[in-house]
Amino acid sequence: MANTDDDRRPKYQRIADSLREAIQSGEYGPGDRLPGENDLMAEHGVARMTARQALGVLKDEGVAESRKGAGVFVRDFRPLRRRGIQRLSQEQWGSGRSIWAADIEDRSLVVDQVTVSEEAPLERVKLVLELADEDSVCVRRRRFVLDGKPVLLATSYLPTSVVAGSAITQEDTGPGGTYARLAELGYKPVHFREEIRSRMPSKDEAGQLSISAGTPVILICRTAFADEGRPVEINEMTLDAASYILEYDFDA
Amino acid sequence: MANTDDDRRPKYQRIADSLREAIQSGEYGPGDRLPGENDLMAEHGVARMTARQALGVLKDEGVAESRKGAGVFVRDFRPLRRRGIQRLSQEQWGSGRSIWAADIEDRSLVVDQVTVSEEAPLERVKLVLELADEDSVCVRRRRFVLDGKPVLLATSYLPTSVVAGSAITQEDTGPGGTYARLAELGYKPVHFREEIRSRMPSKDEAGQLSISAGTPVILICRTAFADEGRPVEINEMTLDAASYILEYDFDA
Repeated sequence: MANTDDDRRPKYQRIADSLREAIQSGEYGPGDRLPGENDLMAEHGVARMTARQALGVLKDEGVAESRKGAGVFVRDFRPLRRRGIQRLSQEQWGSGRSIWAADIEDRSLVVDQVTVSEEAPLERVKLVLELADEDSVCVRRRRFVLDGKPVLLATSYLPTSVVAGSAITQEDTGPGGTYARLAELGYKPVHFREEIRSRMPSKDEAGQLSISAGTPVILICRTAFADEGRPVEINEMTLDAASYILEYDFDA
Repeated sequence: MANTDDDRRPKYQRIADSLREAIQSGEYGPGDRLPGENDLMAEHGVARMTARQALGVLKDEGVAESRKGAGVFVRDFRPLRRRGIQRLSQEQWGSGRSIWAADIEDRSLVVDQVTVSEEAPLERVKLVLELADEDSVCVRRRRFVLDGKPVLLATSYLPTSVVAGSAITQEDTGPGGTYARLAELGYKPVHFREEIRSRMPSKDEAGQLSISAGTPVILICRTAFADEGRPVEINEMTLDAASYILEYDFDA
């Protein structure tokens, strides 16, 4: 941060920043014990409440965790690895496996919220899906939870004209999920575009993903194309950045 | 943000948050005028300095900009589009064009800082490049600037045993850059892995990229592999998240 901003920041926030940087630089590694309240009080000349707040910031961010009676420790960063290209290969969804399964390895990512509705498209959705004025879209909103922690919000938009009457309009899309159903409907996805951005979460996103101050979200907008470049799905995803590594593997 | 954190945040920060959310939700679009100091003072019951600080946060983040005598306006978000896969195709570097050129379109991304040195490898670099204890690496550190604003820090690590005596050890690597030189040395990159994360910048990164509070960085770690899976380069990149969209296009 620029110094001008920094000087306005509360003391506990500046102490938290210095501890976070010591962790990022490797001075404290995963599992290491951080300085305690007494250490921080002595080092920075602050009250116990300030020291506690500083450690609270790092705990809220998922960087550190308390162990009862032992202090505050640097957490292991054990993010999900999302393989962008391999996970969308036909071998995955062609054989009845959900494309999400590839993310999980031995950990259980589950959908804890799903809603499906028919809606008038947002302007950007209408443009990308090449819809006419009167066309509606099927909107699938899902939240994914890992080990009880929400990590991903996903909202898919599909043309009603393509998916009407199929399991895609149901909460449970069946084996192989949406892409297997699209293939059955004659719109097999053959090409994907993923666009990635990062920013701080809105209050609503932070609430839904249980993100606290100081952690960004990663946004992925995926567009799936059937033969002849026909766009058949937009999936807008919002990921807790502290929970994910994205990976793309490709040949030159 | 969680409410407990939010209540601790200074008033100007909370006003900035609500304006930012109004922008993200589309209530204020690119080029729209934001409420002025007088509007914010009346609406939130705060002093002029607080209103000014709130608008200052959004200007620091690059979300808004002042226009002399006219007020504060929502900035056009005109990020760089970095095409992860096409930009690394051999057509790019095979023909003497720098792989960076693909990012730029009509805008000029320039290197304003470059250092090259021979160093003992960090542990993670040693592991990924499969180096022996006595091996050193060639380290190329560069900063890239767009329209006078630094947007990207890139640090490449290459085995000294591979690149010694070549232009890769010089500041100017010549036409086609590092990858063209690696090909001439018999280590043509044929496969790439890119791993992506996002987090808040360290103080040092924020300084080098002129990032202020509230803007994350995107980290890309790229590994280039020659034939038989031989790793020949690691490139750790740190991007100003407000300046970039990453794009990956691929077939199912």
